[in-house]
This record gives sequence, C-alpha cells and structure tokens, in this order.
Amino acid sequence: MNKGQHASDELAYLREGERLDDLQRDGLMLIQNPSWFCFGMDAVLLAAFVKVKQGATCLDLGCGNGILPILMSGKTKGEHFTGLEIQADIADMARRSVSFNKINDRVEIVTGDMKDIRKIFTPDSFDVVTSNPPYLTKEKGRINDSSHKAVARHELTCTLEDVVAGAASVLKQGGHFFMVHRPFRLAEIIRTMSAYQIEPKRMRFVYPYVDKEPNMILVEGTKGGNCGMIVEPPLIVYENDQTYTEELKQMYDEN
Amino acid sequence: MNKGQHASDELAYLREGERLDDLQRDGLMLIQNPSWFCFGMDAVLLAAFVKVKQGATCLDLGCGNGILPILMSGKTKGEHFTGLEIQADIADMARRSVSFNKINDRVEIVTGDMKDIRKIFTPDSFDVVTSNPPYLTKEKGRINDSSHKAVARHELTCTLEDVVAGAASVLKQGGHFFMVHRPFRLAEIIRTMSAYQIEPKRMRFVYPYVDKEPNMILVEGTKGGNCGMIVEPPLIVYENDQTYTEELKQMYDEN
Repeated sequence: MNKGQHASDELAYLREGERLDDLQRDGLMLIQNPSWFCFGMDAVLLAAFVKVKQGATCLDLGCGNGILPILMSGKTKGEHFTGLEIQADIADMARRSVSFNKINDRVEIVTGDMKDIRKIFTPDSFDVVTSNPPYLTKEKGRINDSSHKAVARHELTCTLEDVVAGAASVLKQGGHFFMVHRPFRLAEIIRTMSAYQIEPKRMRFVYPYVDKEPNMILVEGTKGGNCGMIVEPPLIVYENDQTYTEELKQMYDEN
Repeated sequence: MNKGQHASDELAYLREGERLDDLQRDGLMLIQNPSWFCFGMDAVLLAAFVKVKQGATCLDLGCGNGILPILMSGKTKGEHFTGLEIQADIADMARRSVSFNKINDRVEIVTGDMKDIRKIFTPDSFDVVTSNPPYLTKEKGRINDSSHKAVARHELTCTLEDVVAGAASVLKQGGHFFMVHRPFRLAEIIRTMSAYQIEPKRMRFVYPYVDKEPNMILVEGTKGGNCGMIVEPPLIVYENDQTYTEELKQMYDEN
C-alpha cells in the first residue's frame, strides 16, 4: 500500500478530531483521538512483555483504541486477537483501525462490559488475556467527570478485581494473563490474582531512571500455575541525560 | 577498649574454630564459626533497610550468630533487641558476642523455637520484628544433613509461614516487620503476610548487576496496615567492573 492509497483511505475511515498514527510495525496504522486518550509507553512495554505462541487466541480487556490487539497481530503469530471495550465510540474507532489495516480476519473489537464476560465469551476458551487497565481507584484523587480520559485512568467502569476475575473466567487452564499496572498496588495485584487462581509467574519493574522508584510493573500469571516466580532484570527507561536506554530504543524499534 | 584488652578477652570468649570479626560499627565485634555459617550481604542489606525508632523494642527471628540484633544496637537508638535462635550452640555463641561487647543491657539472645513464640514472648509487645530466614523450601534441592548451614538455608526448623505467623503474633498493632528473602517466593511472601494481617508497605529489589535478575528482596510490612505500598529504587550491588556500587560501599561503611 503506498502513501497515495493511505491518503484517500483516510477520508473514509477518520472522523473529526481523529488522526492516523504509524505503529512502525508491518505498516500497521492506528486511529487515535488526542482529546480522548492516546496510547502511551505502558502499551508499548506491555506489548514487549507479552508472549504469544503461534496459533494462540488472545483477548485484551479494556482495549481502548485497540493498540494492543492490533500491535500484537503484527508482532506475533497468534491466531486471533479480540479486544473488549465498554465505551461504544472508542470501540467504533478501534474497529475502524482494524478495517483500515485490513486485518478483520485476525482482529475483532467487541463492545461490552467485562463484568458480563461470561455472557460475551465462552469460559476457559482463550490462551492469552492481556490488560492495561485503569491504575487508580475511584477514591484516589478528584474525579469530576466520566470522560474517556477519566475512564482510562480511574476504576470507573471496572476495578482491578473485575479485570482479574474476567481473565480467570475466560482463560483456559494453564493460559497466561499479562498486565501492566502501578507498583503501589503490587500487594493487591498479587492477592487478587491469587484469589482467582492466577498464579504470578513473572514480573518486571519499570524504573524511569536507575536511581528512581519504579512507576510501572509488568506481571504475568498462569491460570492454575504452581507457586514460584521470576522477577526479571530492571527495565530502565531513561539514561541520565534523558535519552532512552538501549533497551527502550529497541522496544520502540521492534513495534 | 584497646587491642591488648581485646586479645586477652578473646581467650575467655572464643571456642575452638571460632573467630572474632570487627563489625566496623561502634567497635562492635562478632564471634563467628566459619564451619557453621557466617553472615553475608543479606544481613548487611537488611540492617540498612530496617527502620528502628528511638525507644523501640525489637525482635529478630532466627538470629543465628546474633549479627542483626548486635549490629542494630549500634546503628539505631532502639531500646532493646532480642534475638531468638533455635540452635543452642549458635545461641550460645551469639550470647558470648553480646557479653564480649558488653551490651547485655540492650541485647538478649533467647534459645527457643519460633513456633512456640506465644509461650516465650508476650503477644503484641514488640515494635519491630526482623528476620533473615532460610530461603529454600525443604523440597528444594537435596538435603542430606541437618547441619547449621542446612538449617540456615532450608526450611528445616521453620517455614516462611512460621516466621510471618511469629511476627504477627508478637508485633504490636501498627508494628513493623522487616525481612530479606528471595524474589522467586515474592507471591508467597505477599500472600502469607496478608493472611496474617501484615500489610506489605515497602519493598526493594536487590539486583547484583543493573542488567541481571534480582537475587534478594527486602520487604517491610505493617501489622494491620492499610493497602498501598512503595517499591523503592533498585539496589544495584556491583558495577560492571565487579566493584561495589557507591550505595553498597556506603552501606558497608555505615555498619
């Protein structure tokens, strides 16, 4: 597909206020609305952390603009990627990105509430579930609106427990759950995963600088897995001169 | 106390196979038996991680040669430090270290089993409980003996749950628990602390090198604490040229 074709396609796929971003991976593009929410480093790091085997079926809970299923369809040999999104206008935007990329055979966006997950998907049917959920509880900070940004940041439409319970419900026994979250909720994350029989197996802490507290954690759990886990080497984002570390550069290049 | 006095004292305090090590802190010395077990970096890092307020009463569970209570008596303004040790010969050695240092008014070594903790100490009576417990489960690896080294490394005389249950039993409400352990047991540590109402509040991962997996975790919990925690900056032990990092040098200097 050349630039000229892209340009004419844009007219058909884009709505007012939206833009088309190049994911730098297999020619994949993503429609985003900057006044709603744009994907951040969290999604890029989660995509680098997730392991998807050839032929795997994957579900992203709270997929937003579809960044994760669309990116993973290009990065991996997974068979099928579903994104579940509660906000109809954002799900529609994600669906247009899928159509624009002509990957409708491998990626599907479903509008729905993860609290109804058993009515939407077959239990014990996915190999992989991913999520980049809202990090902050409802109580944390002032929330005066239910804007798209607030829904992405605060647990307005789903809690940590909803995400983990949803994953546990639709994962096959032995299936893998991957999530990015904030370190201040680490104990709660491990407790909640354990309560739903998703055993934490792998974890990585993301430190903005080598001498700073981590601001993200990446966690992998196995449904019905045995006790015992690996903590991976520290993921340092910036050198002291505020340029990306080599590892971060590679992650962005590999997208 | 001058060298000459030390030399004559040694005869009275040391048994065969033992040596006297300078803790480089307030003139404190420690009797160790290299054929049993010598304290390692774990104890030094735990001592640097622990926070003891002026006037606090502290208990170290499984104190071995007494390194932690003796060191903490020099590093902090805690009022009293008790070490509990199940192995009578090691407890005796620790007690001789306490006497040698003439700190019997602030440090006491008690011989006993932490599983009997309620018979030994008053419940809800300590401000701080520390532990550098055996890291490996009984099943992990081959264990053909019950030597002092095996007891220090494997859960032969106490399990992770025994340590946490013991701490929960004797800590005051709001008291602090500090432990060094291995990252592969992180999920289990958080689950066990949670089960005994010790909420994880602070954690630090110790990475031997900046690009390697952590080999230790330092964890602080509060009895009856609220949900929500801090993960501290990474603690990197070695520079790439295998010398200590500045932070490690400082920790050893500050002992």
